[in-house]
Amino acid sequence: MKLKQLQTEHTEKEGSNVTLEGWVRNHRPQKTFGFLDLNDGTCFETVQVVYDQTLDNFDETRKIRNGSAVRIEGEVVLTPKRPQPFEIKAHEVEVVGAADADYPIQPKRHSREFLRQKAHLRPRTNLFTAVFRIRSLLTQAIHDFFQSRGFIHLASPIITANDAEGAGEMFRVTTLDPKAPPLDDSGAVDFSQDFFGRKTNLTVSGQLHAEAFAQAFRDVYTFGPTFRAEKSHTSTHVSEFWMVEPEMAFTDLQGNMDVCEDMVRHLIRQVLKHADSELEFLDRFVENGLLRRLERVASSEFVRITHTEAVDILEQSRQTFERPFEKDFASEHEKYLLSYFDAPVFVTDWPKDTKAFYMRLNDDNETVAAVDLLAPGGGEIVGGSQREERYTMLKKRMDEMGIDTEELDWYLQLRRFGTTPHSGFGLGFERMLMYVTGVSNIRDVIPFPRTPNNCEY
Amino acid sequence: MKLKQLQTEHTEKEGSNVTLEGWVRNHRPQKTFGFLDLNDGTCFETVQVVYDQTLDNFDETRKIRNGSAVRIEGEVVLTPKRPQPFEIKAHEVEVVGAADADYPIQPKRHSREFLRQKAHLRPRTNLFTAVFRIRSLLTQAIHDFFQSRGFIHLASPIITANDAEGAGEMFRVTTLDPKAPPLDDSGAVDFSQDFFGRKTNLTVSGQLHAEAFAQAFRDVYTFGPTFRAEKSHTSTHVSEFWMVEPEMAFTDLQGNMDVCEDMVRHLIRQVLKHADSELEFLDRFVENGLLRRLERVASSEFVRITHTEAVDILEQSRQTFERPFEKDFASEHEKYLLSYFDAPVFVTDWPKDTKAFYMRLNDDNETVAAVDLLAPGGGEIVGGSQREERYTMLKKRMDEMGIDTEELDWYLQLRRFGTTPHSGFGLGFERMLMYVTGVSNIRDVIPFPRTPNNCEY
Repeated sequence: MKLKQLQTEHTEKEGSNVTLEGWVRNHRPQKTFGFLDLNDGTCFETVQVVYDQTLDNFDETRKIRNGSAVRIEGEVVLTPKRPQPFEIKAHEVEVVGAADADYPIQPKRHSREFLRQKAHLRPRTNLFTAVFRIRSLLTQAIHDFFQSRGFIHLASPIITANDAEGAGEMFRVTTLDPKAPPLDDSGAVDFSQDFFGRKTNLTVSGQLHAEAFAQAFRDVYTFGPTFRAEKSHTSTHVSEFWMVEPEMAFTDLQGNMDVCEDMVRHLIRQVLKHADSELEFLDRFVENGLLRRLERVASSEFVRITHTEAVDILEQSRQTFERPFEKDFASEHEKYLLSYFDAPVFVTDWPKDTKAFYMRLNDDNETVAAVDLLAPGGGEIVGGSQREERYTMLKKRMDEMGIDTEELDWYLQLRRFGTTPHSGFGLGFERMLMYVTGVSNIRDVIPFPRTPNNCEY
Repeated sequence: MKLKQLQTEHTEKEGSNVTLEGWVRNHRPQKTFGFLDLNDGTCFETVQVVYDQTLDNFDETRKIRNGSAVRIEGEVVLTPKRPQPFEIKAHEVEVVGAADADYPIQPKRHSREFLRQKAHLRPRTNLFTAVFRIRSLLTQAIHDFFQSRGFIHLASPIITANDAEGAGEMFRVTTLDPKAPPLDDSGAVDFSQDFFGRKTNLTVSGQLHAEAFAQAFRDVYTFGPTFRAEKSHTSTHVSEFWMVEPEMAFTDLQGNMDVCEDMVRHLIRQVLKHADSELEFLDRFVENGLLRRLERVASSEFVRITHTEAVDILEQSRQTFERPFEKDFASEHEKYLLSYFDAPVFVTDWPKDTKAFYMRLNDDNETVAAVDLLAPGGGEIVGGSQREERYTMLKKRMDEMGIDTEELDWYLQLRRFGTTPHSGFGLGFERMLMYVTGVSNIRDVIPFPRTPNNCEY
């Protein structure tokens, strides 16, 4: 029987015998009896197993090490005064797989750095049990949100020849001889002999491909891995992370924000609803006040202001900032705006110089229909825009910014064949996970994180 | 209003005015009136829009080209005798985005090869509307299946340093100078100077990482892209495809097959339930008998036989086969077995030489606890196994097969720290999609497929 099921049915099961399988999180043997905290991975909680000298293998049982896999047969006993509502009085304890003496995960606080070195074992700690259960829950919540609204999911390609999106440094994907690549007549590497007959990279975004699908299915989304080859060593950067990128035809920037606001609220509510044990733990040990923060955001009206209005507020703040805020905002400016409104804030219509080529130029010729969502306690968690749907304007902007229009001719064609006003945004999935768990290092919300000089496992 | 909503509510909406937006699939202008077939991407069907000379812009409307984006305001008229239950009598027709004269998708049969060259536009055809709607539906069905059973999703890493899994050729991921890479003292490429401080590749499978998570969460699954750098030019091979890989602790090969059987049945039933229009189209134009085939598989009991039993059946068949079948089966053998049983067939316990290092050795020392699922009309669609959970046996097998045990020490450690009997399987997502759509070329079930010498878009 799985522990999750027993959690639900423990009252009916009182006095009956059950068999559980799982791993020992903590073992406290005494002289004539002992306690095993058992977790089987099907829920956040452990169950306490009590055993005594009536066991045939009492001496063997006393020696069970933390981390061992065991099978327990025993009686369900209700314990209404304890934190756990029930425990198991063991009749049989069988060691399925022993843990060697050097098992590194012990029932004490390990540092996050230490646990990162044990990425294959850290899911067996309370912290990572909570984080990765929420990660899975949030994955489903994202699909549920979009599919229930009729969005079509597309698997946008991972390997791409586009290197012109300007979203950052890219990883090259190749099968050429690393030492002696073929050269062309000019002495340059001859990528026409590479696997795809050209130079290819790992994608930085599925947006352009999603736009093509939005012009057929109206509302679409991607949800998959994206990559950046930047040598950043901060707590918010990794080389491989997942992005959610909805794209909607016949939708302007206001409609874009409507969907984004609904999505953020839905995701937070799903976590509040289905991960109460996990959140309680995180609130206690990771971020004091996490629950209250999430509940407030889930019930807030999101504010919508333009970049100009935001700059006005910052100018009138009488606060001294370390950095300028005329074009882009730093963390200190975001924090000021968030405390000013005490709610999530959409900032729209940014100066065009700071933004990507595909964003729609506003009639002022100075700003584009871009939007960032700032969230209390998290800063920017979403970036989006209305896309430039006008062929001539887009072509002009690409030329100005030195984007290869031949390479992206297929993308330009979308503006010649039934173009529509359309919009979309990108949610960094791990950033959202950090936001709902309170975990401050992105390496701790990814099963096996990839960072510069780190690709273990 | 979205067309899908109008489909549901057309009876109540009779006589009322609605506004629709979408793309013109087919335009048949006459002298004094005309018909526009409109699709907005929210459902498979088009709706017929009738207009006449009462339109202010009748002359402009008559010239609308296929592929154009339009906004229609008009009256809902029920048409019970027609194939479609309703049509729109237009009061206003507005061109949102015209299609240029060279729009390549016309209301006629285009060859699949031609449409592959127009991957950004082909979702606007009936065939690809059907295929990609089913792809999205099946994506959700996979998450629903596993999550409703308590499985935890993990995003297994895409970039990996493991190159020892033996599943096929791999793509290298690098940021080294392609022409003049740094060399070490021995003159070899110095991968310690590459981005991750070592040689890295694109993953061929998430299984090993899923095994680590299964030893914490019991039931887990991956669902993400995987890669093969093989220069295959067949209709079933691509360089980038998605895999579903569940992994279950405390589960033997029989339990593995139970989950697999439930999953396949669930996926087919979801498609039968939610994609009737799409399946009807595919049954008519792509594979005659598709619907009947899917219905039969969904209601079949799956057969379970050992490899030895399968060989016996082939030997006693009195049929002459072109190839030997003693170890591995070719398509002709699979077909014979499928017609013999007239149901999906699990073949278990394969000779160890043909299988991967991580499969559990049976007590006969000759076979491993592997399983292939053969499906009528599709051949092998799933491969799985019980994993070798015994440290000594696994180490021995890895040494025999020349697998780097130092590189995979973390994987071996799972057998030293609370090992459990565990099992899993891999479903090639696109193979399943081909199976449920009847589409015979894998390039036609992937939004932007990657194959040797082909990485357009």
